[in-house]
Amino acid sequence: MRTLAAEIARHTGEEVELSGWVHRIRDLGKVSFVILRDRSGEAQIVLDRKPDFTHESVITVKGLVAPSEKAPGGVEVRAAEITVLAAADPQLPIPVNQDPAKLSLEALLDNRYISLRIPKLRRIFELQAAILRHFADFLRSEGFTEIKTSKLIGTGTEGGTGLFQVEYFDTKVYLAQSPQFYKQAMIASGMERVFEIGDAYRAEKHETPRHLNEYVSLDVEMAFIESEGDLMDLERRILAYVFAKLAEQNGEILELWGASVPTAEEVGRIPLVSHDEAREIVSERLGRKVFEINPEGERVLCDWAKERHGIEAAFINAYPRKMRPFYTYPLDSKTMSFDLLFRGLEVTTGGRRINEYPMLLDALPRFGLTLEGLGDYPTIFKYGCPPHGGFAIGLERLTQKILGLANVKETSLFPRDRHRIRP
Amino acid sequence: MRTLAAEIARHTGEEVELSGWVHRIRDLGKVSFVILRDRSGEAQIVLDRKPDFTHESVITVKGLVAPSEKAPGGVEVRAAEITVLAAADPQLPIPVNQDPAKLSLEALLDNRYISLRIPKLRRIFELQAAILRHFADFLRSEGFTEIKTSKLIGTGTEGGTGLFQVEYFDTKVYLAQSPQFYKQAMIASGMERVFEIGDAYRAEKHETPRHLNEYVSLDVEMAFIESEGDLMDLERRILAYVFAKLAEQNGEILELWGASVPTAEEVGRIPLVSHDEAREIVSERLGRKVFEINPEGERVLCDWAKERHGIEAAFINAYPRKMRPFYTYPLDSKTMSFDLLFRGLEVTTGGRRINEYPMLLDALPRFGLTLEGLGDYPTIFKYGCPPHGGFAIGLERLTQKILGLANVKETSLFPRDRHRIRP
Repeated sequence: MRTLAAEIARHTGEEVELSGWVHRIRDLGKVSFVILRDRSGEAQIVLDRKPDFTHESVITVKGLVAPSEKAPGGVEVRAAEITVLAAADPQLPIPVNQDPAKLSLEALLDNRYISLRIPKLRRIFELQAAILRHFADFLRSEGFTEIKTSKLIGTGTEGGTGLFQVEYFDTKVYLAQSPQFYKQAMIASGMERVFEIGDAYRAEKHETPRHLNEYVSLDVEMAFIESEGDLMDLERRILAYVFAKLAEQNGEILELWGASVPTAEEVGRIPLVSHDEAREIVSERLGRKVFEINPEGERVLCDWAKERHGIEAAFINAYPRKMRPFYTYPLDSKTMSFDLLFRGLEVTTGGRRINEYPMLLDALPRFGLTLEGLGDYPTIFKYGCPPHGGFAIGLERLTQKILGLANVKETSLFPRDRHRIRP
Repeated sequence: MRTLAAEIARHTGEEVELSGWVHRIRDLGKVSFVILRDRSGEAQIVLDRKPDFTHESVITVKGLVAPSEKAPGGVEVRAAEITVLAAADPQLPIPVNQDPAKLSLEALLDNRYISLRIPKLRRIFELQAAILRHFADFLRSEGFTEIKTSKLIGTGTEGGTGLFQVEYFDTKVYLAQSPQFYKQAMIASGMERVFEIGDAYRAEKHETPRHLNEYVSLDVEMAFIESEGDLMDLERRILAYVFAKLAEQNGEILELWGASVPTAEEVGRIPLVSHDEAREIVSERLGRKVFEINPEGERVLCDWAKERHGIEAAFINAYPRKMRPFYTYPLDSKTMSFDLLFRGLEVTTGGRRINEYPMLLDALPRFGLTLEGLGDYPTIFKYGCPPHGGFAIGLERLTQKILGLANVKETSLFPRDRHRIRP
């Protein structure tokens, strides 16, 4: 019966069996200290001999748990029997028991199978798993249904550029950039409130610390809204819930990274500025006129929000029509759309969508689109589609900003960029 | 303030506002009855005039809730004001308010945006969402971490056939058939217990009621197991939990489809037979010698299990080595692998994996593989990988068999087969 490393203090004076990786070896000749690492944490093992195994080998240790002032957690295991389950090559490509900040991101990603053993890096993904859980739990509590839609689409309906092409038997299809059309279809089908956690693909040649060519999109769509205001309210509730759960259950990971999450009260204070106002604020702070909010502008606006509202985040709405996709619901020359910036980075784009067929027909030529080019999409609006809208949160970007990481690639287990298709 | 159709009985004698789709119209001249459908159910509306809207239009109704013996639920809404939010074209491609059994599967899938409005069909996906939730909840309760891995792989490591090719900037990549290698990598990284809910792609030209070219795979991988027995035990616990939750919370959907789920006691009775025993049972029942368990054999074996053990399901283990992938842990000429058949269909494949580097080196030439051809995969085993194994449950097949549907495509919102890439 296996005991986890984090639980041995409860077994002081008892015989236990531990299994895990050899994290660190201190060989003092007649006695050796070994740190064993498992999914729960670390435990100190004492041997009355030289160890005959290498760093990172997988071992099973049987022994007595005894108090030890110097051991982490105040106890150690006096090894009576050690079995090597899987020996590790002594030439590790990168060290596992040192500060990962000393290694380049390239080295960490090239050696992903080993670098994820570094506890501090692995725990990024424990936090990410918690985000996935709480996002879904919250939406279910508000009557949303989880959907899974196809990522293979027959037509490049969002413009055609930026799509990866797939050889599909005797024809070509594309990897979906988002589940946008499908989640709208589910609104019209009567589910009314849906969410999807799925992969999204962007064939864009950028190489920046904020882009991935494949990422996980947390998509939400909701019927019977009046404006983008209902969507921003929903996102505030989602974030307040997720942040509260992380603070409550994952405080140790946040602390490890020197990070913290906003409180519900702070989320409530996230300011809303129109795109015009945002441009003015950024222009004034940069001392030159800006016409759109680029990455620098996103940082400037979050600094402004931190100073004025005590939270490093801002909603921007009322984007001009030409800056948003054709399906965005217009309001005069603007749109019922919004972005959320969080800690200097856009983490969400959303808005109310056009739901009336005549309005869609009017919008298409403005964007150089035709009904035919949109495939099945217009059908959604021909047979009764309620007012609706939604948004998408980038899972990796949210993880990055919660933990304060420099590059979004750190938050993807196996990131894909223009040059990286392995491991 | 909107009230849902399912809630109006609680508001008898009050003014309410309902929003939804016009499901059915009965025009008696001076008075009309309209069934309004929303995500919660249906409500009867009474108008003192001819309706000026079409079937499937989206309307908002304000009116008084009054008792009515003939109305579903015993109440109806006497409309004071009706607003048409989105008018539907009167020429619906398929009827929404009739029994879907009268329509062909092709018609339902071709007109997916409309057919999903048929309540009985839409509810398949409510049940599917519940499966997703309970699967994840159960695994989290046993210390599993949810992961998201790349679906774009650089090498066709599982053989190369059956892979869809993607144009990736200046190179070619493939859509992953399963997260097999990545979940094994996560075991070796020290997460020890992981699960992934993700898309899987098979470029196989089959056209059967049991195959999809894109499906959702419920993947599980677990370290420190001894044999496939530990995995079958885990799957029993998962299924018993999921079935119990569905019976408890989704009884109405099961009833609508005339379906039921096995009890925990019945899941405990699922027999385990070796591949050799399975062949004997099927051979005897068919009156001719069979060498593998094909779809007909799967049905025959489930019939046998139903008669002998009172549950239409069976685990098969000890498959011969040549019938399983190269990474399957061998045991003499057999393997530590298993399948689960449920109601006549294979819904799970799994097994213990090779975790020792020398054993992997020995296995490769038997399967015509080389270390180089496997890309980064062998690295997983070079630096200490514990004994482990896992399995994958096909979400659509499980949904199909729970509800007793004839074709797995009925359980995919937007199924992809050799000829179907739309909508």
